[in-house]
Amino acid sequence: MLIARVIGTTVSTVKDEKLTGRKLLIVRQTDEFGNAVGKPFVAIDTVDAGVGDLVLTAAGSSARQTSITKDTPVDAVIMAMIDSLEVDGTVTFRKS
Amino acid sequence: MLIARVIGTTVSTVKDEKLTGRKLLIVRQTDEFGNAVGKPFVAIDTVDAGVGDLVLTAAGSSARQTSITKDTPVDAVIMAMIDSLEVDGTVTFRKS
Amino acid sequence: MLIARVIGTTVSTVKDEKLTGRKLLIVRQTDEFGNAVGKPFVAIDTVDAGVGDLVLTAAGSSARQTSITKDTPVDAVIMAMIDSLEVDGTVTFRKS
Amino acid sequence: MLIARVIGTTVSTVKDEKLTGRKLLIVRQTDEFGNAVGKPFVAIDTVDAGVGDLVLTAAGSSARQTSITKDTPVDAVIMAMIDSLEVDGTVTFRKS
Amino acid sequence: MLIARVIGTTVSTVKDEKLTGRKLLIVRQTDEFGNAVGKPFVAIDTVDAGVGDLVLTAAGSSARQTSITKDTPVDAVIMAMIDSLEVDGTVTFRKS
Repeated sequence: MLIARVIGTTVSTVKDEKLTGRKLLIVRQTDEFGNAVGKPFVAIDTVDAGVGDLVLTAAGSSARQTSITKDTPVDAVIMAMIDSLEVDGTVTFRKS
Repeated sequence: MLIARVIGTTVSTVKDEKLTGRKLLIVRQTDEFGNAVGKPFVAIDTVDAGVGDLVLTAAGSSARQTSITKDTPVDAVIMAMIDSLEVDGTVTFRKS
Repeated sequence: MLIARVIGTTVSTVKDEKLTGRKLLIVRQTDEFGNAVGKPFVAIDTVDAGVGDLVLTAAGSSARQTSITKDTPVDAVIMAMIDSLEVDGTVTFRKS
Repeated sequence: MLIARVIGTTVSTVKDEKLTGRKLLIVRQTDEFGNAVGKPFVAIDTVDAGVGDLVLTAAGSSARQTSITKDTPVDAVIMAMIDSLEVDGTVTFRKS
Repeated sequence: MLIARVIGTTVSTVKDEKLTGRKLLIVRQTDEFGNAVGKPFVAIDTVDAGVGDLVLTAAGSSARQTSITKDTPVDAVIMAMIDSLEVDGTVTFRKS
């Protein structure tokens, strides 16, 4: 899974019918401190995440292993909200 | 999913029989502003996209979860047209 | 799918039994003009491709969705020969 | 599989229900000497690994092939603890 | 598939039970001349490969399509030994 921050939203009218009503969020991978690295990608939300939240994303066929994403053409899912991260005994991120 | 722009088309006569009649478009990943980044790849179209459109693509086995791509040897699908993108409260792309 | 050029061949005597009689070609991803980029990889041929041909490759589980590759331990397949590529209205490649 | 070092832990209250009680560790890929390279990612633990341990991780659908991860939305699993690594006849890592 | 060279071995006592008795080798991707490029990774051996051998590896779910790796949590398999490579009509590697 990747540590990622939600940075935005997408609006799409014409899409695969299985995606009707799904929330597609723009996220960016972060490092262990919550700092964004790399290019943005889009993940389907299953945990009511919002812009600014630090989350975990799963990719590939694993993205389809939730009740919301089963059999849908999505390759990235937000499957957890991050409360805190700890590295080598030090808290590097805590949700405010 | 990746945010991507359709930049071109491919013509292929000799191909796997399951691809007969399918439209294979050349796309490039973009950032959250719709600016192209990275190398081009080819995705099968399921939403009647055309050159210049900003779209979402799904990769891997997820690319086979549409009625058009089921059981076909394709690893990238265009499964949504993007109307608009919003990042940190600002619209960064709107379809014209 | 990736646009790729066939650059060579491999010979392998000791291999998984399901690969007996299969043709394993060395390819390199190209850009939309057919110019090679990136590292070489090996793909199983299903369209009678040869050295110099521009082809499309599918990766991952999608590589096993042809009659030739079903259930075999291969993660890349050549599933189409490219006749021509067109980008923004201009032909960038045409098979000679 | 990747050689990786466990560098930290994550706490997540709101998550997919299948992840209840699972341990999600932050890891970084290492080279053959155990030196970290690349960005951190999160893997589910199946071997009681702890911070500092050198481990093997499997990604993608392969991450779901353990009794702990079956059918869960995870794309990386720690499936082995590394006792030692040997490269070209020289031990490059031994667990202390 | 990747062209890769076997560079070492791993020893692991605590691991997923399905991996008991399996040989996990450290490999590095090579170019078409057999020169190593990129980071090392670990692949399960199915062809009795040894340190120094040039091999082909398959990744992802394709790595589980051999009798040895079926249903195991591995994402890379050595499924062929390379005898020779030929690029643009010239032999670039021949097993000694």
